[in-house]
Amino acid sequence: MCNKAIFMQGTNNMVVKDVPMPEIKENEVLIKVDVVGICGSDVHYYTHGKIGSFVVEGDFILGHECAGEVVEIGKNVKNLVVGDRVALEPGKTCGKCEFCKSGKYNLCTDVEFFATPPYHGVFTNYVAHPEDMCFKLPENVSNTEGALVEPLAVGLHATDQGGVKLGNTVVIFGTGCIGLVTLLSAKAKGASNVIVVDVLENRLQVAEKIGATHVINAKTTNVIEKIAELTNGRGADVVIDTAGAEITLKQTVDVVRRGGTIVLVGMTPKDEVEFDFMKLMGKEAEIKTVFRYRNLYPTAINAIASGSLNVKDIVSHEFEFDKTKEAFDFVAGNASDVVKAVIKIK
Amino acid sequence: MCNKAIFMQGTNNMVVKDVPMPEIKENEVLIKVDVVGICGSDVHYYTHGKIGSFVVEGDFILGHECAGEVVEIGKNVKNLVVGDRVALEPGKTCGKCEFCKSGKYNLCTDVEFFATPPYHGVFTNYVAHPEDMCFKLPENVSNTEGALVEPLAVGLHATDQGGVKLGNTVVIFGTGCIGLVTLLSAKAKGASNVIVVDVLENRLQVAEKIGATHVINAKTTNVIEKIAELTNGRGADVVIDTAGAEITLKQTVDVVRRGGTIVLVGMTPKDEVEFDFMKLMGKEAEIKTVFRYRNLYPTAINAIASGSLNVKDIVSHEFEFDKTKEAFDFVAGNASDVVKAVIKIK
Amino acid sequence: MCNKAIFMQGTNNMVVKDVPMPEIKENEVLIKVDVVGICGSDVHYYTHGKIGSFVVEGDFILGHECAGEVVEIGKNVKNLVVGDRVALEPGKTCGKCEFCKSGKYNLCTDVEFFATPPYHGVFTNYVAHPEDMCFKLPENVSNTEGALVEPLAVGLHATDQGGVKLGNTVVIFGTGCIGLVTLLSAKAKGASNVIVVDVLENRLQVAEKIGATHVINAKTTNVIEKIAELTNGRGADVVIDTAGAEITLKQTVDVVRRGGTIVLVGMTPKDEVEFDFMKLMGKEAEIKTVFRYRNLYPTAINAIASGSLNVKDIVSHEFEFDKTKEAFDFVAGNASDVVKAVIKIK
Amino acid sequence: MCNKAIFMQGTNNMVVKDVPMPEIKENEVLIKVDVVGICGSDVHYYTHGKIGSFVVEGDFILGHECAGEVVEIGKNVKNLVVGDRVALEPGKTCGKCEFCKSGKYNLCTDVEFFATPPYHGVFTNYVAHPEDMCFKLPENVSNTEGALVEPLAVGLHATDQGGVKLGNTVVIFGTGCIGLVTLLSAKAKGASNVIVVDVLENRLQVAEKIGATHVINAKTTNVIEKIAELTNGRGADVVIDTAGAEITLKQTVDVVRRGGTIVLVGMTPKDEVEFDFMKLMGKEAEIKTVFRYRNLYPTAINAIASGSLNVKDIVSHEFEFDKTKEAFDFVAGNASDVVKAVIKIK
Repeated sequence: MCNKAIFMQGTNNMVVKDVPMPEIKENEVLIKVDVVGICGSDVHYYTHGKIGSFVVEGDFILGHECAGEVVEIGKNVKNLVVGDRVALEPGKTCGKCEFCKSGKYNLCTDVEFFATPPYHGVFTNYVAHPEDMCFKLPENVSNTEGALVEPLAVGLHATDQGGVKLGNTVVIFGTGCIGLVTLLSAKAKGASNVIVVDVLENRLQVAEKIGATHVINAKTTNVIEKIAELTNGRGADVVIDTAGAEITLKQTVDVVRRGGTIVLVGMTPKDEVEFDFMKLMGKEAEIKTVFRYRNLYPTAINAIASGSLNVKDIVSHEFEFDKTKEAFDFVAGNASDVVKAVIKIK
Repeated sequence: MCNKAIFMQGTNNMVVKDVPMPEIKENEVLIKVDVVGICGSDVHYYTHGKIGSFVVEGDFILGHECAGEVVEIGKNVKNLVVGDRVALEPGKTCGKCEFCKSGKYNLCTDVEFFATPPYHGVFTNYVAHPEDMCFKLPENVSNTEGALVEPLAVGLHATDQGGVKLGNTVVIFGTGCIGLVTLLSAKAKGASNVIVVDVLENRLQVAEKIGATHVINAKTTNVIEKIAELTNGRGADVVIDTAGAEITLKQTVDVVRRGGTIVLVGMTPKDEVEFDFMKLMGKEAEIKTVFRYRNLYPTAINAIASGSLNVKDIVSHEFEFDKTKEAFDFVAGNASDVVKAVIKIK
Repeated sequence: MCNKAIFMQGTNNMVVKDVPMPEIKENEVLIKVDVVGICGSDVHYYTHGKIGSFVVEGDFILGHECAGEVVEIGKNVKNLVVGDRVALEPGKTCGKCEFCKSGKYNLCTDVEFFATPPYHGVFTNYVAHPEDMCFKLPENVSNTEGALVEPLAVGLHATDQGGVKLGNTVVIFGTGCIGLVTLLSAKAKGASNVIVVDVLENRLQVAEKIGATHVINAKTTNVIEKIAELTNGRGADVVIDTAGAEITLKQTVDVVRRGGTIVLVGMTPKDEVEFDFMKLMGKEAEIKTVFRYRNLYPTAINAIASGSLNVKDIVSHEFEFDKTKEAFDFVAGNASDVVKAVIKIK
Repeated sequence: MCNKAIFMQGTNNMVVKDVPMPEIKENEVLIKVDVVGICGSDVHYYTHGKIGSFVVEGDFILGHECAGEVVEIGKNVKNLVVGDRVALEPGKTCGKCEFCKSGKYNLCTDVEFFATPPYHGVFTNYVAHPEDMCFKLPENVSNTEGALVEPLAVGLHATDQGGVKLGNTVVIFGTGCIGLVTLLSAKAKGASNVIVVDVLENRLQVAEKIGATHVINAKTTNVIEKIAELTNGRGADVVIDTAGAEITLKQTVDVVRRGGTIVLVGMTPKDEVEFDFMKLMGKEAEIKTVFRYRNLYPTAINAIASGSLNVKDIVSHEFEFDKTKEAFDFVAGNASDVVKAVIKIK
């Protein structure tokens, strides 16, 4: 067994390097990586070298959406055996802080997260990972689906934060990968009407195909009027902004119903945005936010396995491991066409 | 227009009588009743003349699962027009007590509920009802489905009380009408595994047909062992007892997971049951209960309209209005074969 | 018995007029008004003639913070008798809409609220009011305390929305009446540290006297640094903005802890405010809002009666009924000195 | 420095032995134990040698209610320094299971809990403990109060499970240590009426002294009638059974209000108890249970430090370290007189 990894080397450049085979600790398993998804954050590091205060220094392995096969287990491992296929939850948390102890481990400030500097990611053949963060995939869930559990968990968390319930009307701004997994999550929880808004017609068609009850092209349609019409003037129970544009953030409060919930997932292009808080207060609406996810891998895997949602539907492109650079260049250059690209490692 | 109603006259007897056309108040609508379901409680009044402290005195109209068409509206009615088809929520509450004001109107002690003595039910051609308790049915929801909203609301409330969520494992004891609508509700909310337990093989087959992932015949299978096996020893997130037998109530605590929730819906045959509270405490599990439902007609109608659940699947028998007595006699005599019988009024 | 009322007649002017004795409906009681508080909204109508889209037309009776004595009861009244002293909840809601039915009646759009045009208020000797909105005061709660239940309910709702719990650290921006009742509410719920921020030294002293653990004068102290210091860099569990200034709204996100809750109560001077949503998302914090209150009169009265909080502490000025105009002029001209003025009617 | 510990040696016998000074791991601190409370479970092990399936084998150190001083820190310890006084949370959990990750670590099945066989307790001079389970005491909280955080946490958890809120009426069955800390917790959260029930007059007097609004001696008073009278027939919002007697468990459902919450804390003398589930369902009430506590040490310490509750009030007896056996014998023989005994170690 030898181990190779793809490193970004400066921006818009990648090299393959031999890396040591990871040594597993007592509570870890060794994973032969099979499928890794390319996330928007991976592409942003690749093209810009940083995201906010997280700066890539030196050669760096990207990738955090990952599934593979257990090929070795540490001596204290109890629940996994060699041969199990697993999805990897990428963030190792401290387990000791108030957030970890109270179940909100996504807020742990000491997290070590794949592909967030200085922690390398998983565009590599083998990786060691704690047993409790490797979630066994049942027979009817593929490794590609396993890799997609990571973005799906964001959509599940967004709909959890919004309290999406059976029979709800939900508005989702944005049809990027997160917008679409949020759509899948809302439908799987029984939302009756899911209205998706974007400016890219091809993406809206994908949304419609995978379950949106209505799609609105904001280029050609007045979003606020159209949603008022679709909801008989009532507005949406839950409004989830995955687009992170100034205009979408502002519109959330216009389309949410009295007493409804706004959820912010997408990053805004600038820190400060003008927002109509008087309107928010007049409706006694609330704003929730999403930072990654917590405790959702089992839910996601159960939901995929039982057919509650079909996450495969969002994969638009697949590449071989040795074409990883080409994959990144393609994704970076064709943002509106690529819903989700995955790399087949082995 | 003339109005007839079917009255039970003593037990196991029914007569048709002319009744005055109801006069509607300012906030009421007049409904031409189309479909009325026969509930277990209707049959119990028919055969026993009472349920607990509720005693039928004199001739009495049964029926509370009902949909029909608006044929006249009061002068303050705003949201309904003649020709609308509606499902009728049967309980008129006071609107003034602490329960009504805080949204738990199902606990109002001054409720006037169709077919609960002394308030007549809806086996009649015309009935007046407050606008706000008549819920408009969309085109793709039939009056039969509208009548079934009432039992469905119980299933929705039971799964709400249990906090059933996407990916959950749910155990349901009982395959009566309420057991089956609870099953439909759990599936619609994304439960991945719904295990249904009963002793009637034909009912278990219905459960399987409409979505149960596993069915267990308690006559031939050790329920506790089987559920342990199906859940890898973990137990169910939510256990809902709709059977109301002493044995099922006792078993809830054996099959619920640590920290899980038990929901009691079915009435027990005797008031007091021996229960292992030490086991409940050792798991820090909780017991919730269900008394009718609240605020769920819109959810139910949205869920039916959007295809999240298919409530028609539980209708096994249909009768004409003038065969109401025959219908009651049939249902009373064939409990295990009848899932849900409905009467077509007009 | 004759009945007089004080009407505002144009801005900054008031007249006394004889008005008919109210006739009570079956479910109403007649109240001899004893104490009425002057709210900031009353003063705003008095000086500006409108608040937002609510415009005073013609002569208009202000006042909605009110307690008095039952002197006559309607024939369906069950729970009150002549001689009972009661606090009046000022908003009559429809009881029929989705908000009323689900317990969020404060969002009812058909509400008739005392002193919100076109509905007159209670600066009058006698008023008729539904029994279920008149809450009996126990012997040890005075009518002045009864009148203060109204603003107190806002503070209770704000701390409810924030989920203030025993042991919490709470920051409150603003020391107006609402800021102070929010402080009382937070302390009564067991908040360990309540940090109050304002620019008026005399108001901060009041805050300290009635229970603030720390007060910060934003004129002389860096608010963000000081709160970081007081909380060891952790931030506050709950941050409640009752000031409604642009600067306080912006600072909420700087002083809330990761995963914490911001509650907006105060109206902002302009509709749109620039806000750092990226920081909000980075902390996965949430923003809740407050529109009046719901189901809190019993809680407030219980809390006063049991000594959990001492709402009398906020009364700074008292006037006789025939000095109502002088009272309004005084309050309008001495905003920073008046914490809460009340009018003694009888 | 030498280290001694008190071992139970068979039932009703204790010996002092020299034990090695504990070696601390990187994330641990060494504590010089100062105060240890005697819990009912300690006494039960001492007199019976076991609790349920937990059997003492060989010489065994009891004690899990503990505070002391940090005298040495491991190299990875960040938040504590030598000289800090701390309260010790006694249960080390796995941090990896679904319960630990979701914040319900009290349900972790791999917990190592002080004085629960086979894990020794803290009747010893020195003990090593993980930093994150040692909670710093502020200057105004004594070590005795620190030791009492452990039982207090049970009371806080019980009132959390019950959702005790400002203004509530709470009934507490039992005036043992847990009954009394539950009383303190309910008062600190703002409960207006706390009715305490027992058969021991001297304990009821303690309850009254530390804040009960009403006490009922079940020997001389009809509990159900008295509570109905005290609550005007409404019943209690929350009923907490810390007595664990068959009769108290049965009565919970009689005294809880419609829609209210029952919390079970005390262990029942036998596993199965007859319970009126029909009454529970008729009220749509719920039963919650308590297994230890979670995430409550900071809350408890904040509440003590801020004066929200006065946990010292429950200490009735204090003994020196070398009188530990005498202390146990006294407590075992004078159950009704001892509210809480503590051992002063150093």
